[in-house]
Amino acid sequence: MAEPGLRERKKRETRTRIADAALRLFADRGFDRTTVAEVAAAADVSVKTVFNYFPAKEDLFFDRSEEIEQSWLQAVADRQPGEGPLAGLRRRSLGRFEDHPGGPTAHFRRVLAGSALLQARGQQMWAVHEDAVAAALASELGELTGQVLAHQVFSVHPLVLRKVEQWTQDGVGDDEVRDRALALVNQAFDLMDRSISNVS
Amino acid sequence: MAEPGLRERKKRETRTRIADAALRLFADRGFDRTTVAEVAAAADVSVKTVFNYFPAKEDLFFDRSEEIEQSWLQAVADRQPGEGPLAGLRRRSLGRFEDHPGGPTAHFRRVLAGSALLQARGQQMWAVHEDAVAAALASELGELTGQVLAHQVFSVHPLVLRKVEQWTQDGVGDDEVRDRALALVNQAFDLMDRSISNVS
Repeated sequence: MAEPGLRERKKRETRTRIADAALRLFADRGFDRTTVAEVAAAADVSVKTVFNYFPAKEDLFFDRSEEIEQSWLQAVADRQPGEGPLAGLRRRSLGRFEDHPGGPTAHFRRVLAGSALLQARGQQMWAVHEDAVAAALASELGELTGQVLAHQVFSVHPLVLRKVEQWTQDGVGDDEVRDRALALVNQAFDLMDRSISNVS
Repeated sequence: MAEPGLRERKKRETRTRIADAALRLFADRGFDRTTVAEVAAAADVSVKTVFNYFPAKEDLFFDRSEEIEQSWLQAVADRQPGEGPLAGLRRRSLGRFEDHPGGPTAHFRRVLAGSALLQARGQQMWAVHEDAVAAALASELGELTGQVLAHQVFSVHPLVLRKVEQWTQDGVGDDEVRDRALALVNQAFDLMDRSISNVS
């Protein structure tokens, strides 16, 4: 039984090595000007191996897409007795901004800013994640409400990232930025919770 | 007193003629490949005149930006006795999707899709409008709530546009698409209203 475990681990390591090499090249040269052959060379694997792990060049950049969708769905399911349907989603959003108030790494953001193709793909992926969360919420809250709330949940992140950027430009300190970011997340979820709580 | 009215009208006509000529050229050649000199020639005015009306080339595309911001602020103020603070914003959003369920014209969307610069500028403008609405709501609802609700209001439009596109691709008829779009807008505002209504 040790054999498949080792094999899986090796595969994950190779996958990570390729994605890391790709991000470094993309950050240096831009996404559009980097070829898959260059990524393969930098990661010391064949082009065929790269395509085995990443069917499209964009997948090299959004290599954690599936993992992220799973984490959103787990967040919907992550609920203690007595908690409302958004409790896990609130925890996920808070954790996200506790760990990285400024959002993705500078490398990641620079590559994204330089490629309209990646931006379009990113929005498409974000919409797919949102629809998955909407479907998960719909079973409890109905289709329309599930769709609107999923969209509101996914809208919290861009709002917070935009405000964090503003505050940072205004010279607000890191701790204060984090506090404000978390307060904004909490306020958004407080409002959402109240919008679906039964008014008795 | 007739004189200034005529002069104002002439100015508005010139402004519109320049913006219309610009959109036609942008749609034909793309935003990045069109020069201000070409726009001036197509509108039969000097380059200096174009810059008098539109300080930056992007302003030729987003020529209705100020008008749109004013309409958002009027929507916040547009409130009958007994109505909540979001009533006018709901009416504005419903009106928007009653008139044009598919969003901006095909020309406008094609030009926007072809230019990362315009997309960035569009998002920036959208954020400025949102912050103006947030400030207007904050006086009644507090700063955090105003910010979150303004963001939720502005998030309704992208959600509806995305769903309209999906439904249209799925072959749903125009009338049904419009009905669904309006139902989504109403549901979003119902939830927002409930989130700020006093639970007695």
